[in-house]
This record gives sequence, C-alpha cells and structure tokens, in this order.
Amino acid sequence: MQRIEALSDGVFAIAMTLLILDIKVPISEVIHAESDLIKAFFGLTPKLLSYFLSFITLGIYWAAQSTQFHFITKSDRRLNWINLFFLLFVSLIPFTTAFLSQYITFRFAIFVYWLNIIMLGLILALHWNYANKNNFISLSENENIQVTKAIKRRVVESSLLYTLGALLGFINPYLSLLVLIAIQLNYALALISRPPIHKKVHSSKPDE
Amino acid sequence: MQRIEALSDGVFAIAMTLLILDIKVPISEVIHAESDLIKAFFGLTPKLLSYFLSFITLGIYWAAQSTQFHFITKSDRRLNWINLFFLLFVSLIPFTTAFLSQYITFRFAIFVYWLNIIMLGLILALHWNYANKNNFISLSENENIQVTKAIKRRVVESSLLYTLGALLGFINPYLSLLVLIAIQLNYALALISRPPIHKKVHSSKPDE
Amino acid sequence: MQRIEALSDGVFAIAMTLLILDIKVPISEVIHAESDLIKAFFGLTPKLLSYFLSFITLGIYWAAQSTQFHFITKSDRRLNWINLFFLLFVSLIPFTTAFLSQYITFRFAIFVYWLNIIMLGLILALHWNYANKNNFISLSENENIQVTKAIKRRVVESSLLYTLGALLGFINPYLSLLVLIAIQLNYALALISRPPIHKKVHSSKPDE
Amino acid sequence: MQRIEALSDGVFAIAMTLLILDIKVPISEVIHAESDLIKAFFGLTPKLLSYFLSFITLGIYWAAQSTQFHFITKSDRRLNWINLFFLLFVSLIPFTTAFLSQYITFRFAIFVYWLNIIMLGLILALHWNYANKNNFISLSENENIQVTKAIKRRVVESSLLYTLGALLGFINPYLSLLVLIAIQLNYALALISRPPIHKKVHSSKPDE
Repeated sequence: MQRIEALSDGVFAIAMTLLILDIKVPISEVIHAESDLIKAFFGLTPKLLSYFLSFITLGIYWAAQSTQFHFITKSDRRLNWINLFFLLFVSLIPFTTAFLSQYITFRFAIFVYWLNIIMLGLILALHWNYANKNNFISLSENENIQVTKAIKRRVVESSLLYTLGALLGFINPYLSLLVLIAIQLNYALALISRPPIHKKVHSSKPDE
Repeated sequence: MQRIEALSDGVFAIAMTLLILDIKVPISEVIHAESDLIKAFFGLTPKLLSYFLSFITLGIYWAAQSTQFHFITKSDRRLNWINLFFLLFVSLIPFTTAFLSQYITFRFAIFVYWLNIIMLGLILALHWNYANKNNFISLSENENIQVTKAIKRRVVESSLLYTLGALLGFINPYLSLLVLIAIQLNYALALISRPPIHKKVHSSKPDE
Repeated sequence: MQRIEALSDGVFAIAMTLLILDIKVPISEVIHAESDLIKAFFGLTPKLLSYFLSFITLGIYWAAQSTQFHFITKSDRRLNWINLFFLLFVSLIPFTTAFLSQYITFRFAIFVYWLNIIMLGLILALHWNYANKNNFISLSENENIQVTKAIKRRVVESSLLYTLGALLGFINPYLSLLVLIAIQLNYALALISRPPIHKKVHSSKPDE
Repeated sequence: MQRIEALSDGVFAIAMTLLILDIKVPISEVIHAESDLIKAFFGLTPKLLSYFLSFITLGIYWAAQSTQFHFITKSDRRLNWINLFFLLFVSLIPFTTAFLSQYITFRFAIFVYWLNIIMLGLILALHWNYANKNNFISLSENENIQVTKAIKRRVVESSLLYTLGALLGFINPYLSLLVLIAIQLNYALALISRPPIHKKVHSSKPDE
C-alpha cells in the first residue's frame, strides 16, 4: 500500500467518525421518566440522520477512490497533489453535511452540499484522466477502455443526478433533499442490480 | 493488508480514543487541598468506567472482525459495503456508551446500547455468510465448517446473553448493567479457559 | 511500510482534519432568509481560508517526508526520534495556523507561524543528513549526490523565501501574509514547471 | 504489518495530536498591541509544555512497543488483548498529563501520572514475557536472552526512576516534576551515549 492510500484511509476514518462528537448525550436535568429519555433521544434524529448521510457519502467516495487505486500502480508528485486536494474536500464533508442538516429548507445549504460532492466527483475524474495519460494504470488497452468508460459514465451520471436533485431545491427544498438521499442510498444499496465495474478483471480487491 | 482493513483500524482507533475527550480535568477553583483533588478525581469514576467499558466493547468487535479477515482473502464491493455499515455502528459505540453511563437506571438507555451491540453481531454474521457464499474464504472445506460453526455459535451465544442481560433491565437496571459488564469482561478476560477459534489452523495472526 | 511511516500518516491525517472542528455551522436563530445564510456562510471565510492554508502546508511537508522515506530503506532509534520531533511540529501546525488567521495583522503571529515552518524544514534536513551519514539510503553514490543537492536546495530556498516573507511583516503584515500564501501555492501548484526530484531514478512511488 | 500494529499506530497518532485541541488561540478582545499578543502566547506555556511532555512520553512507549513487535513474529488472541490493554493506558496519557499540568503542586496528580506510566511499563513487560513463553519471538536463543535482559533492565530501571521521582513529591512537588521530566528527556535525547538494544541483530527496523 502506498503512503497516499494510508493517508487517505486516515483522513476518511477521521471524517467518518468526527460527526459523532456533534451528537451530545441529552442533559439529565429535565429527564425523570423513561418517556422523557425516549423523547430526548428522538430529538437527536436530525443529527443521527445527518451522521448516517455523511457516513454513506464518505463511503461512496472512499470506495470510488479505492477502485481507482486498485488499477493505478504508479504515481508521481502531481497525482499525489490531486489526491491531497481530493482529501481536502473529503474532510469538508462533515461540515457541509452538518450545514445541510441544520438548514435543510434553505437552497444555499443544498447548493454548498452539492458543490462539495461535485468537486469530489470532478477531482476523481481528473485523477483517473491524469493517471491514464501518464500510463500509471496496469490494464491491457482493451480493459482500460472499458474501465475508463465505466468510471466516466458514473461521474457524469452521478453529477447529472446530483445537479438535478439540487435544482429541485428551487421548487421544494424537502423534495430536493429526498432526491439527494435517494441518490446516495441508490449508490450504497444497489448491491444487487449493478454488476461491479471490473467484473471480468479482478475479484480479490475492493471495487466500488 | 487491504484498504478496508486499514480504514477499519482507523475508525476503531478513533472510536477508542474519542471518549477520553469527554473526561475533563476537574476545574481548579474549588480545589485547594490534596483531599479536594482526590475527591474531584473520584467524581470522574462513572466517566472512567464508561471509558473502559467502551474500550473493551470495541476491542471485542475489533478482534472479531480481525478473525474474519484473517480467513477472508477476497472481497468485492458488496463485502466492502457490509464492512462500511459495520464501521458505522462501531463509531456509534462512544455515543451509546456515554448514553448508557449517563442514564444507567433507564431501560431505554440499556435498550439502545443493546441494539448497537446486537447490530454489530448481526452485521459480522452477515459478513461471514456473504464471504462464505461467494468463496472468499481461504480454508479447506472441513476447516471452513468448523470455523463457521464456531463463529455462528459465538454470535448466537453472545446475542442471547446480551438479550438476557438487557431483559433483566425490566426487573432491575443495575442488575442488567452488571450482567452486561460481566459478559464483556468474560469475552475480554476469558483468556485462559477458552481455546482460540482456529487453534489447529494458524497461529501467527490475530484470532478473537 | 515501516511503523514510523504509518504513525506519520496518522498524525498528518489527524492534523489535516482537526481544524474542520473549529468551523462551526452558524447558529440558526438569526437566520431567516437565504441572504442571511449566505452572509453567515461568507462570515466563515477566514476560517475556511485558514483551513485551506493549513491543509496545503501539511500536504507540502507530508510530500517532502514521503520523498525522503522513498529513498531511506534502513532506520535506527535516532532516526525514529528525529521523526517523532518532526511529527511534534506537524501537530502544532493547526494551532499556529489558527493563531495566524486570528491575528493576521500582528508580526508576532507571523513570527510563530514562520518558526513552526522553519523547524519542519530544519528537522527534515537533519533527517536526511543523519540517514545519509549512516548509509540508510538506497541510492548509488552518483544519484545520492544529486538527490541530496536537490533536497538541500529546496530546504535552503524555501527557508530563505519564508524568512523573506516573514521579514516583510515589519513593513506590512498583509503583504507578508500574501507572500507566505504565494510561496505555499507555488509549492503546491507548481506542478507543470518543475520536474520532480528523482525524475531519472524511480517513478512508481511518491516524490515531492 | 499486523493489524494490531496498525491499530496501535492509530491510537498513538490520535493520543499524540488530541492535546493540541486543548490549546486554544487566545481571545482577541483583550489584545490590541504586539505586546498583548506575546503576553497571551506565553500564558499558554504550561499547556505547550504539557503538550511536549505528553508527546515525548507517548513517543517513548511507541518506540518501546515497536521494538518488541520487531522481534515478535507470531501472536494469538491473548497477546492481542494484552496489547489492547496497553492501548487503553496509552489513550489515558493525554488525560493524566493534562491532570498533572493543571495540578503540578499536588502529590495526587503526580501519583496518577506515575501510575499511568508504571502501568504502561508493566504491561509491556508482561507482553514480552507472554510472547517469550509462547515462542512468538524470532531470535536465536542467545540473542533472545540478551534482548530479554535488556528489555527487563529498562523496565526495572525506568520503573525505579519514575518511582523515585514520584516519591520526591512528598518532599517537593516541583522537584518531583523536574526529575520526571529529566527522566523522559533522558530517554528521548540520550541518543548519543546509549547503544540501541539490538545493535548486533538487525538495523533496518525501528528499535528503541
């Protein structure tokens, strides 16, 4: 494992767990009966949902980056810096998710969240392009064309979907949010319908 | 080491150390003599106990996941997502433990803690099943049957014990808590009586 | 990968993500319209800039340390301790960056930030010298001379530039800050003009 | 690298960087001139010293654990649990150091700090003994005797020194603290006088 991958895992692990610090145990002074505690706990629902949302978002991009590194066997300083900028936007996710969950009815909050996610997609696309152009990828030409097509289709597809979801915010923020969540769950849970990217290539390493 | 293992170690390491942030050094204004300081320190006992409890819980599930990865030599995108959901519940442990330690006399707090632990067990069982069904496990058929049986027995055993412990909460929350702690110490400290799972298989890697 | 590298990646990953904790979602009580939220968001600009600055600084020194470890194949306890002191100053970066961003018009804040960065450069130079003197570097004598020259030139160059930038603080703190940021962006973004250090040596591992 | 080592590096990295969160940038309202800022910065001295002290302590035990793992090539579930308890006391160090730095004139604070450090030493000694008894160590019998002797001498020596330092607290807490710091600096900086433990054995891996 290269050091940039180890650094990435560290940044992802911290970003995934940081938001839990935001979920405080409810204060005990107003809690006397079981029903008080249950009510206080369900008062945390927005924070817990925000936590789940953030975790799944980060899981999606961690998996996507893993897939790329699975095929990229060389790197140089520029590729490292593309990755560092990717990580910069990864570590912003806890903030933009909290911002969205606090202001779910505001178009601007949806815009900021959308921008963060689009940046992640764009940098990953740039990452693959750069690696491809410099022959850092260990695939036969034929496989490479297939994988590159699959990666590009995903980035374009998901960017369009996220943009559509964000634009719905001009009609109704709640609708927009529901679509954003649906897109993410689709990625995370569409385990049955979609075949993995490199089905015919390897099977012993993480794909998406 | 696969990246999902590196990510797991990161999430576990952070979850294990986060709670210490909750233990604040007592404020100095009211402390004038040694006896004041000693009293203030022992006032931190519930927080320190909660810290130990959380650490041991996380240690148990880290060890259980390690055991599985020791035998699993392939993976795919679905197995990765099962692991990501496992990690999601791992990073909730500091919160549910703090919730329990703050409200030890409440049945609902015991229920939430129990639910978190049961989810960890269930996802780990699902993890092994999925890996097994897809031939990701590098064991002879005979060894596989033995190890699978041992892993399932543990999950069923511990789930039953935790459920029993939680149900005791309807009689007496303190009794329930004591049983929960006893179960965890049993796992952590039963170093002498129980043979490791894969005694006859390997000995150079972490088991449970 | 040696353990000191794994520890370094952990410390860098945490230092890179810690500052985001400092950027709090604006409080909702005063926010009623989209324009309030946009104004509140742009009120976070200094914190976000400080976050980017800190991230890039850490990226530069992470890359520089990676380059050295790429060539250093042996180590001893002294080299480990040189690295531990390097990591000590790495984990100070979030603090000194926050200190600078809070007091950008103060010469002393620029001085503290400059001192932190100079220490990182000096320790890295010491690190390479020690490894070199003890034959821990796996390069032919000729390559070694080239790489050593390149590393030293960088440390001297950047130290002089940072010092110049800091000294400008006596004339105008803002000017000084702009020069400091320009120097860092030059390192991070000068991807096109400067060839990597070990162009002729390897290309499958991180360089600077 | 085994997963227990990766987990250890994560816990150490977090423990090493957590304390920086405790060092807040001084509030700007009372700061108008350079001299105010300099005064405010030097008001942070106890916190910064405490940070350095904690970092060095953790560095010492990280290096000691690395040395042991360098020679230990097998492990089982019990050895993993010994390590997990070691990590539990590692992650307490930021708390006990902050406790000490807040109450440097109190014997009880010195006692708690001393206890934490002694526990780390004892668990490491137990770790080596257990690995030795179960033939997990890849050394010839002769080398093993030498290394075991060196490790034990260090644990006994340092425990005695720390105990002596702590006992001085009954005479004068400041004296006690000075001796504790001197002991730690001796470990960290005695790079010239003491030869590494396994001088004749290996030289490509971290020793103490």
